[in-house]
Parts: sequence; C-alpha cells; structure tokens
Amino acid sequence: MNKKLLLLPGDGIGPEIIAEVRKIIAWINENAELNIATEEDYFGGAAIDAYGVPLRDETLDVARKSDAILMGAVGGPKWDNVAYDIRPEAGLLKIRKQLDLFANLRPAIVFDALIDASSLKPEIVKGLDILIVRELTGGVYFGEPRGIEDLGGGERRGVNTQVYTTSEIRRVGKVAFEIARKRKGKVTSCEKANVMESGKLWREEITRLHGESYSDVTLEHMYADNAAMQLCRRPSQFDVIVTDNLFGDILSDEAAMLTGSLGMLPSAALGAPGSPGLYEPVHGSAPDIAGQGIANPLATILSFAMLLKYSLESVELGEKIEAAVQTVLAEGLRTADIMVDGCTKVSTIEMGDAVIKALAS
Amino acid sequence: MNKKLLLLPGDGIGPEIIAEVRKIIAWINENAELNIATEEDYFGGAAIDAYGVPLRDETLDVARKSDAILMGAVGGPKWDNVAYDIRPEAGLLKIRKQLDLFANLRPAIVFDALIDASSLKPEIVKGLDILIVRELTGGVYFGEPRGIEDLGGGERRGVNTQVYTTSEIRRVGKVAFEIARKRKGKVTSCEKANVMESGKLWREEITRLHGESYSDVTLEHMYADNAAMQLCRRPSQFDVIVTDNLFGDILSDEAAMLTGSLGMLPSAALGAPGSPGLYEPVHGSAPDIAGQGIANPLATILSFAMLLKYSLESVELGEKIEAAVQTVLAEGLRTADIMVDGCTKVSTIEMGDAVIKALAS
Ligand SMILES: CC(C)[C@H](C(=O)O)[C@@H](O)C(=O)O
Ligand SMILES: CC(C)[C@H](C(=O)O)[C@@H](O)C(=O)O
Repeated sequence: MNKKLLLLPGDGIGPEIIAEVRKIIAWINENAELNIATEEDYFGGAAIDAYGVPLRDETLDVARKSDAILMGAVGGPKWDNVAYDIRPEAGLLKIRKQLDLFANLRPAIVFDALIDASSLKPEIVKGLDILIVRELTGGVYFGEPRGIEDLGGGERRGVNTQVYTTSEIRRVGKVAFEIARKRKGKVTSCEKANVMESGKLWREEITRLHGESYSDVTLEHMYADNAAMQLCRRPSQFDVIVTDNLFGDILSDEAAMLTGSLGMLPSAALGAPGSPGLYEPVHGSAPDIAGQGIANPLATILSFAMLLKYSLESVELGEKIEAAVQTVLAEGLRTADIMVDGCTKVSTIEMGDAVIKALAS
Repeated sequence: MNKKLLLLPGDGIGPEIIAEVRKIIAWINENAELNIATEEDYFGGAAIDAYGVPLRDETLDVARKSDAILMGAVGGPKWDNVAYDIRPEAGLLKIRKQLDLFANLRPAIVFDALIDASSLKPEIVKGLDILIVRELTGGVYFGEPRGIEDLGGGERRGVNTQVYTTSEIRRVGKVAFEIARKRKGKVTSCEKANVMESGKLWREEITRLHGESYSDVTLEHMYADNAAMQLCRRPSQFDVIVTDNLFGDILSDEAAMLTGSLGMLPSAALGAPGSPGLYEPVHGSAPDIAGQGIANPLATILSFAMLLKYSLESVELGEKIEAAVQTVLAEGLRTADIMVDGCTKVSTIEMGDAVIKALAS
C-alpha cells in the first residue's frame, strides 16, 4: 500500500519531534506492508520567516493531495508582534477551514506509569480515558461579522459571531456517536443552551440525531460550565464529549491537563471520509527548550499512531506503535518533562530510538 | 445604621438556606449597631409558579430601592420545559442586566479543614485563595443579533453575538485591579485574543488601563484555554483573574470545583458604587435534597458576609461571620455534603445555630 504524508514540523521543538517520527516512517517502509512517501514544508512562524505568510497556498495544494498531514507545533514569542491575520495561529485556522477538518479528536488518557504527574489524586484519574470531539471549523472562530469598530471618542467595539447550522452540528455529532459505539457507548454533549440560542439549536439537533440513528448510545446533555466542574470532580463519568469549537478548546485543554502529561497527548482533526486528516501533539512549540534535544517526542509519535489508524487504514501498525510507547514507559525511560526519581532520563533522540527498538522486538 | 435587604430564596434548597441567614440577621438586629430590614419575594421557578414569570418588575423595583439582595438558588427539573425566555435562569439574566451588575466576584478558597474534599492533591491546593472577577452584563450572553433562523429544507441556523466595548472592559478591569491591590497585587486577564477580535480588544483595553492607573499591580495575559489548564496544574499561580462573561462562567466554575467544597463558596455581583449588589451561593438549587433539612447553608452565610462587607459598609461584621464559619468547621461540624469520618454530622438548622453560637461567643 502506498500512502502520501505531508510533514509540517513548524516552530520551536516541532522539527526535533517530527525527526523522531521520520525515523519510524523509515522503519515502516523497511519492515511493513506499507510505503509512506513524505513531503515537507514550512508552517506557522517558520513559514512567516521563509515566505511572509504562515501557510502558503502551495502547501495547501500538497496537503489536499496527501493522505494525511502530521504537524509538529506552531508559534512562539518571536512572532508575537506580527499582524493579527498573519500570525502563526492564522495558519492553523486556515488549514483547518480549507481542508474542512470539522472534527477534532482530543483523547485525554492517563498512562499508569505517569499517573503521579497529575495534580489530581491517583484514585480520581486512574485508568482515565476520555475522548473529546470538538467541532473545529465553525462557531465563533469563523463567524461573521467580526472585527473591531471605532465608535469615536476613544470608544471601540469588538465583535465576534457564534453561529452553527443544523448540518454543521449533525456531522460532528455523527463522528462522536460513531466513536462512542466503539468505546463505552456514552456521549456527553456540552453547550450553554440556557443562555445561548446557538447552544439551544446544538442541543436540539444532537437530540434529534440521537433519536434517529444512535439510540443504542447513551446521550447526556451538560452545560459547559458544569462540564468544566465535573471534569475536575469525577472525570471518569465521561466517555465521549462532543462540543463546539470554543467550548471544545477550553474543555479539551482542561481534560488534557487532568492527565498531568501534556507531553504524551496526541490529537487528530478529521474531515469528510476520504479527505486527508491532520494530526498534531496537544502540547505547544516550547520555544524555551527548542534546540536542546530534550523535548518529548511521544505525543507526536502517538499522533502518528492515530494517523495510521484513522487516515492510512493501518490500525494494527498504529496499535503496535502505541504498544511500543507503553513498553518504553514501562522500561522507565523518561524525557525531562516526565522525569521522576528512579527512572532513566533520555534525550529526544534516545526516546525515538527506544520506540523503534520496541517496535522491532 | 439602617439598611434594606431583599431576600430572594428561589427554588429547591433556596428557602432552607436563606432561613439560616434570617436567623443571623435577627441576631445582628439584636446585637450589633446595624439594623437590617428585610423584604422577600419569589424568584426563578417559584416566581414562574406564582406569577408566570421568573422575575416580576415589582420585584425589580424593590431590588432597586434596597441596599443589597441575597439570593438562594434558582431552577430545577420542574421548569426544564418552560419556554426559553421565561425559564428560571432568564430571571437571573434579567436581574443582572437591569441592575447593571457588571462585576461578578467569585472567590475560590480552600478551607484547611476541608482540604481532603478536593480531587486535587492537598499540596497543590493548600491555602488556595483565588478571586475571579467575571464580567456579567455583556458578551455573548446579551449580544444582538441572536436567535434561531429557519433556512428551509430542515436546515436551521443558531446565532449569538459576542460583543464588548471599551467602557465595558474598563469598568470591570478597574474592579479587578482595585481588588488585586488589596490582595497579592496580581491580575491575570483571560481571553482568546488569538482567535477573536473581541478578545483582542479586551487585551488592548486592559493593557491600556493598567498602564494608565495600575502599573503597581502585576498584569499577565493568558488565553482562556491555557487558563483552564493552569487552574488545574498549578492554581496557586493566580491571585485575581479578570475575564468576560462566558469564559468567566466556565473558569469560575472550574476554580470553584478545585476547592472540592462547592457548598462553601459565596459570590457577589456588583454594579456602580452605591447601587445594590446581588449575593448568592455558587452551588445550585439541589432539588434532589430540597426539603430534607440537610442542605449546607454555609455558602449562603458566607455570601451574606460578603454582602455585609461590600454593600452594607460592615466589614467587621462580615469578618466576624467568616470567623464564626471557621470556628464551626474547626469544631468538626459538617453537613452531609462535606461530611467525613471523625466529624459530627449536622442538619441545615443545626449548622445555622452553630454559626450563631460562634458569633455570640
Ligand atoms: C492556537 C489556537 C488558535 C488554537 C485554538 O484556539 O484552536 C489552539 O488553542 C488549539 O486548541 O489548537
Ligand atoms: C444559570 C446560568 C444562566 C448562569 C450563567 O451561565 O451565568 C450560571 O451558570 C451562573 O454562573 O450564574
């Protein structure tokens, strides 16, 4: 099987962690029934420096012809002062919108070996395995009208528009229900239907979709503020959470932090079946440690495992990589961010090598 | 000193917990240099049942002529099916807007005696004392246009508008900076300036206000998603958080839950100096335990303590009540929601009596 992959290392530690995945790709091309051809381009701040824009149309063209995209990380203080619509993050919003990547999958998983890293008590987070499905191409991130208006006399007015349509809600709802069916069979849908009509529509459409096609799945509605509470109180009550772009941004980050190991968490952004998905670690570009060879490549490696499963029809290979990550953790190998007494501190490169060794054995 | 107080017990456990404050008011009228005259009315679901609307204009008139308002709790499954704009919560939004209560103060405090109730590790939350200042009369809660539109062919569109002006941002910013000055001198301002122009305006105006009048206070900006993470990772990094209506709703609930003791947390909603403030516990109406006499009245009692301090010019009395609450906790008295082995379980009424006894001694 031949597949095409676009690598967008991006900024900060991005290039270092993507380099470790490149080693795994070489191993796959050598040892598995899958052949992955890669292309690579600048993205984010690196693309601003090279081309003056965070995402070139040429890059988008290559992305469209690829089976999947793997991204490192985006942004950094170096680009804090660039104009609002060419900042590194603008590239992220553009690629999501242009490739219609409407479903963001954000797993929050607690790895037994790393449970002590959580600020929550071990008995609260043991075995935690939540998946947040965040709508990614609609809502207040993209709604019009938007902007800042000068009202005169020193007074200004900033406006954004939160908007969702029936079909936008249904397509992301479907993703959540389908995935829940293969998991524990429960979906919690979050909005603020008590104060926002867009949330009221969200609740009604999710309820209707559930009644039409997914009544075997348990559906629960929860206000977003209560969800933020419940995540912290008893996170194990959740299986799949489906929510809009803005609430999803906040709740998925909160859920990620519950695990204590941001350096371990992958993510996927999916569009319509058959279109290329975008995969990236949840952590940021960590400019403070960039170039030191100490970044944790595991979230990127796990993002690549998701990519194999969801976009390259290679579920087994993806699971093999996930198992390899478990193995290196069980062996006590740790990069600096997850290091604890009694474990062995390794570099980015050593961690990548260890995963390959575990894969090969 | 004569003061006028409006009591709005509301729904569920509301009447039971307000009854305990009424005992404290009687004690004050008997024993202190303050005379509090109270009026009382239905609010929320109770007002829907009695009058067909969650908040009557007559109630608003009384509220305007009062020095402060103390509310119990609002809502419950009984009213889940009432129309969108006469549901119990609509009363809450109306009173906030009509009294121009633009600054919501939400303390998140960990009581030493209750530290084990938190799902976070004790070393992470020990001594925690955060104050969230949430903008309460603007943003997406009130922005126009809003509504659900029928697009035909089964397709609908839900819209809300997030909008902030310079003066709305400045007045709530001032409240945050003034309070921070009397605390640890740090303000963290939260928005999503990286994706929303309304957040960009928020950041710019808070920065300008800080430069003009509050450069003795430390100002930090943080994206709301990162704030949701940091609250869970290392909450002690925060002193005062200032944020908009929607982010404030979510972040203040998350912060409240960090403490583990929702039954203990008070809140205040303040308008322009001299106008009546509204005080209420953070917890909900808990319809499942209503009428059983087991609800925890302490959050309402602490809300009343805030009321004395912020609206009735009685800081000393407010502090005396706070000290009395510490005393009953130290004595090991606990309502069911905060009960642990080795403590003494008490009813709502017994807890109120114990606070009065501590006040009197
Ligand atoms: C960088 C930013 C634009 C982005 C977002 O808000 O979506 C980030 O927080 C994320 O979740 O991927
Ligand atoms: C009940 C609801 C309208 C309200 C809000 O969203 O503001 C509540 O969550 C709160 O924080 O007081």
